[in-house]
Amino acid sequence: MIKHLRSAADLDAATATLILDTAAEMAALSGREVKKLPALRGRTVVNLFYEDSTRTRISFEAAAKRLSADVINFSAKGSSVSKGESLKDTALTLQAMGADAVVIRHSASGAPHRLANWVDGSVVNAGDGTHEHPTQALLDAYTMRSRLGRLDGLKVAIVGDVLHSRVARSNVLLLTTLGAQVTLVGPPTLIPLDVAAALSEKTQVSYDLDAVLPDSDVVMMLRVQTERMQDSYFPSAREYSRRYGLDMLRMRKLPEHAIVMHPGPMNRGMEIAPEVADSPRSTIVEQVANGVSVRMAVLYLLLGGK
Amino acid sequence: MIKHLRSAADLDAATATLILDTAAEMAALSGREVKKLPALRGRTVVNLFYEDSTRTRISFEAAAKRLSADVINFSAKGSSVSKGESLKDTALTLQAMGADAVVIRHSASGAPHRLANWVDGSVVNAGDGTHEHPTQALLDAYTMRSRLGRLDGLKVAIVGDVLHSRVARSNVLLLTTLGAQVTLVGPPTLIPLDVAAALSEKTQVSYDLDAVLPDSDVVMMLRVQTERMQDSYFPSAREYSRRYGLDMLRMRKLPEHAIVMHPGPMNRGMEIAPEVADSPRSTIVEQVANGVSVRMAVLYLLLGGK
Amino acid sequence: MIKHLRSAADLDAATATLILDTAAEMAALSGREVKKLPALRGRTVVNLFYEDSTRTRISFEAAAKRLSADVINFSAKGSSVSKGESLKDTALTLQAMGADAVVIRHSASGAPHRLANWVDGSVVNAGDGTHEHPTQALLDAYTMRSRLGRLDGLKVAIVGDVLHSRVARSNVLLLTTLGAQVTLVGPPTLIPLDVAAALSEKTQVSYDLDAVLPDSDVVMMLRVQTERMQDSYFPSAREYSRRYGLDMLRMRKLPEHAIVMHPGPMNRGMEIAPEVADSPRSTIVEQVANGVSVRMAVLYLLLGGK
Repeated sequence: MIKHLRSAADLDAATATLILDTAAEMAALSGREVKKLPALRGRTVVNLFYEDSTRTRISFEAAAKRLSADVINFSAKGSSVSKGESLKDTALTLQAMGADAVVIRHSASGAPHRLANWVDGSVVNAGDGTHEHPTQALLDAYTMRSRLGRLDGLKVAIVGDVLHSRVARSNVLLLTTLGAQVTLVGPPTLIPLDVAAALSEKTQVSYDLDAVLPDSDVVMMLRVQTERMQDSYFPSAREYSRRYGLDMLRMRKLPEHAIVMHPGPMNRGMEIAPEVADSPRSTIVEQVANGVSVRMAVLYLLLGGK
Repeated sequence: MIKHLRSAADLDAATATLILDTAAEMAALSGREVKKLPALRGRTVVNLFYEDSTRTRISFEAAAKRLSADVINFSAKGSSVSKGESLKDTALTLQAMGADAVVIRHSASGAPHRLANWVDGSVVNAGDGTHEHPTQALLDAYTMRSRLGRLDGLKVAIVGDVLHSRVARSNVLLLTTLGAQVTLVGPPTLIPLDVAAALSEKTQVSYDLDAVLPDSDVVMMLRVQTERMQDSYFPSAREYSRRYGLDMLRMRKLPEHAIVMHPGPMNRGMEIAPEVADSPRSTIVEQVANGVSVRMAVLYLLLGGK
Repeated sequence: MIKHLRSAADLDAATATLILDTAAEMAALSGREVKKLPALRGRTVVNLFYEDSTRTRISFEAAAKRLSADVINFSAKGSSVSKGESLKDTALTLQAMGADAVVIRHSASGAPHRLANWVDGSVVNAGDGTHEHPTQALLDAYTMRSRLGRLDGLKVAIVGDVLHSRVARSNVLLLTTLGAQVTLVGPPTLIPLDVAAALSEKTQVSYDLDAVLPDSDVVMMLRVQTERMQDSYFPSAREYSRRYGLDMLRMRKLPEHAIVMHPGPMNRGMEIAPEVADSPRSTIVEQVANGVSVRMAVLYLLLGGK
């Protein structure tokens, strides 16, 4: 088993599949009857969050607690960071305190890689800048497999601000590893061809969502970071929504079996219409639930739980 | 048993009495010797606090932990709320994560009712705007019953900014359900007659505290929200304190057995004099302690603990 | 055993030694195999932090959790403090909730002493203004003893802003109690002779670091609070660093066996050069690890764990 999960590129097909299979067992085990598993009793998981992300933090916290680990939350607000403590000093502190795993969210791409040099415990990337978010990719893959029965050969459209999306990046890496065919869709400014090529040779690019939908098994809508709408990268909000937003009319162009995904939090009415978000094709709520199972699996496997 | 506690109006006399009786058992059980009860082992209680209230949050956290539940704190600061996540999306997240109970504090009246539509778990209102705070009313009722032996027929004066007080509202609803006679006391601007009537037909109104005290078993002083002192509703701070503040002189007008309550945090010297707050008639510290027992009882009964 | 740890002056030599010995047992017990001890199961430790200090808060949290206590974090941000709740009211709240120990960090010197008047539980000072930080002194003493085999007769130089340092103050008190010889080193403005004398008669003062180093077993560099650099107390940053910063050249003046300490977080390049901080003589990482063991010992002994 790997020691750290810093990037979706840390995962080969066998390891990724093992995580998904373990997550399925976790989901089966941790039903309403048996809510806690003793696997990580006595282990300490630190949530080291330099950026706000309650949703991801709570998902990891719930996952660690269901495995009976102790959880310590460390948020940059109210931390020594404001006193000028470097990531290295913080890492040495966590190391000295005997953290078995450190889940890190940081605004700087590559922070989890640096952290892994300084601690003995396992490092899990919970989002580093615009770089990666590998557990999101794992929960997305888990959701696709559980809804559609397979990943190999699956046609997945990832739609939106690919350039700045760690979710897109990790998904491309993991999905191509697992044999899916990914098409990136969005305005040309947000999917530069060199960026797409650098991500993966196996990835297609399209600027026409309507053309891609009829041949997609999965359409994954990325969150629009509305604060970025002023950027020159972006068409106007209205134009963006008209061309790349998923409304009911557009959803009907999908094959009957196809599913609609979103990593949340959604901008209802911008990249996704409320009726689409709440439709039976939408997996948005399942994705959240699956996130806990997948993170249980990741912590369990990285920490060698028994 | 009811499933949610969104309002004191959710409680009929039998249910409210069951909660008070259970709280008494909890208080007896969870003494210094036996600090943890296994009743909610493996259950997850989420504290979803959109407004600051460390005191209430800690009281619920202590209650849940004494029942061996896992507690996850979610505060709006540092949450996806700032990314535009709606209450509904947050609810779906908590639902997906398998929260057994969600304790919610929110600035919007009615937020707990909406939340209850979106989650399978139990919803407990820990204060919604100026609307309600039912566990505060329960702990107040518990305190009265434990000091005075009964609630039926008890004469309770609630003094201050009734118009904006969720504490007053929940207390009126619960106390009248349990047979107490409530008199609302304060400046006319803060106790409009239509508001008082809408709250309960059984409630009296008075603008003269000195006239009410000699015939009261309980006087409950409401917190003055000093930031509201500029409002046209309020007389000047000095005038308010002179007419509706409880000082030693005024306290002597109470019958000998009568008690003085305050939900905290107090403005010592404004609505209550320091010597009154610290006198043996004051139940302020007991109220806090009783809050933990009452919240244990609420969580235990709503979650069907065994 | 003492009940509270408000000041290093609460500790006589026998009690301090018992804490250090117990910490050594804790360190031996709580290795990778046995991470949790049941000693404080069912006890509640409250971290009451009115100032940011994630490092100290996490150290106490980790210590309490390893002893199986429940931990409730109360931070002034998001607390009733902003509603004007006094320390006394907060204390009564914690008291009512049955806290067995309250670990307090506060900007006001003496806050832990006042708190101890209002709660039945044990009070542990985790830093009060510029006054004291006794568990830091204990972990420093533990680190010296574990590196150098003894404390009696040890020559310790404490270097920097002694005037404003609670770390310095607690260290002087504890180290002289335990028989070490302390020399305070820094610019005259930061070590007024009356302050030094008031701290301890047994303490030496020097304004010349280079003269002190060759005869020191331990050199403890204090953190420069850079926001204070504008004060008239301070020479310029450059001048300070040149005269009182520890770089490699200066470190070579120490005896071969001598160690370099720092309470963290460091200003690398200001009071300590990066190569010194990362050298084998530096005990900075050990200090952090020892902090958890020492705090376990303090909580264990104060709470009479078994």
